Amino acid sequence: MLDQAKTSPLLDKLQWRYATKKYDAAKVVAEEKIEAILEAIRLAPTSSGLQPFQVLVVTNKEIRAKIQPVAFGQAQVVDASHLLVFAAWDNYTDARIDAVVDRTASERGAPREAVAEYYDMLKGMYLPREAEVNHQHAARQAYIALGVALTAAAFEEVDATPMEGFDPAAVDEILGLKAHGLRSVVLMPVGYRASEGDWLNGLKKVRKAREDLIVEVK
Amino acid sequence: MLDQAKTSPLLDKLQWRYATKKYDAAKVVAEEKIEAILEAIRLAPTSSGLQPFQVLVVTNKEIRAKIQPVAFGQAQVVDASHLLVFAAWDNYTDARIDAVVDRTASERGAPREAVAEYYDMLKGMYLPREAEVNHQHAARQAYIALGVALTAAAFEEVDATPMEGFDPAAVDEILGLKAHGLRSVVLMPVGYRASEGDWLNGLKKVRKAREDLIVEVK
Repeated sequence: MLDQAKTSPLLDKLQWRYATKKYDAAKVVAEEKIEAILEAIRLAPTSSGLQPFQVLVVTNKEIRAKIQPVAFGQAQVVDASHLLVFAAWDNYTDARIDAVVDRTASERGAPREAVAEYYDMLKGMYLPREAEVNHQHAARQAYIALGVALTAAAFEEVDATPMEGFDPAAVDEILGLKAHGLRSVVLMPVGYRASEGDWLNGLKKVRKAREDLIVEVK
Repeated sequence: MLDQAKTSPLLDKLQWRYATKKYDAAKVVAEEKIEAILEAIRLAPTSSGLQPFQVLVVTNKEIRAKIQPVAFGQAQVVDASHLLVFAAWDNYTDARIDAVVDRTASERGAPREAVAEYYDMLKGMYLPREAEVNHQHAARQAYIALGVALTAAAFEEVDATPMEGFDPAAVDEILGLKAHGLRSVVLMPVGYRASEGDWLNGLKKVRKAREDLIVEVK
């Protein structure tokens, strides 16, 4: 049973992936693989379908050179093929939720009022809250997409590194995110691992044993 | 290019999945599929490898009947085959981080001091912070695992529903989580969609257009 699970094609890819520490700066990920990862992000589920974030795909080398020093100098920021920046909404607003209502009604050919009823309830809950509470909620949704994106990258046999070690305010400044009501929450360089120079490559993947992570309530 | 991406086996499954609103209460998910989803959760990457959460797999029907009323009466809680509860650490502690150091050193056959150096730095950063800040950070890691789990469920053609609509304190009480330093953050019923009675089943999946979600910085 466990053996069967451990040999599924998806689990094999999740075993293969690791938080790449050194990328081969000469290797570029093919556009169709990048598009597959971005499409997985687009399809990722989010609370009430709000998708309260944007993903910046940074290929510009000058901008990435500016980000590296505010990311503890980590070389993946510049060496990877593409740098994805997940930027969550700074707050929920009437306009942002209305856009979701409009899109949902339009794509489903439903009366706007029918869709709006649920989202009006949501506005009543979200809009009076502090911006920080709403941003934290939006950030969690971005992390669902991050989990989906990391799985999709592994599935495409593209290396990726989830990175929280950076100064969000500084990255926001470099990318001009504040003016768009966005705050960077996590970075995800994607590319191909270098054949040498990565201290983590080749080290055993360490995870909790199943019994330390999973509790059965029967 | 985009067509190619849209026909990848993983993207097909992400298109297929949806937040199931009504489960067939008579259908049980096979153990090997549940194990594949749990193994994906176990393999999910987390910040510094802390895996700061546990996942409860609740099959007990009486307990699920108690959770339903504190989850806005949502029927998925009781009708799904299994109910997964993601419960994040309420705080980072010396002992919890030491367990990660011990496991990493032991599994990699590395000197404990070599591994401890990094985690001592992490303790210096995390332990003085407010419990709430650390819990929020731990919750984000659980959401990465949620994203991986939802993808793994879809890959196994098992239906799943990410659910935030519940009273965390009440669920913590029902499951006795507080004594273990855990706080419930998200529910994930898994099972098989009912053939009828699900208002969302059959409705078009609505997502932002690529250009509304993705920003290219070239």
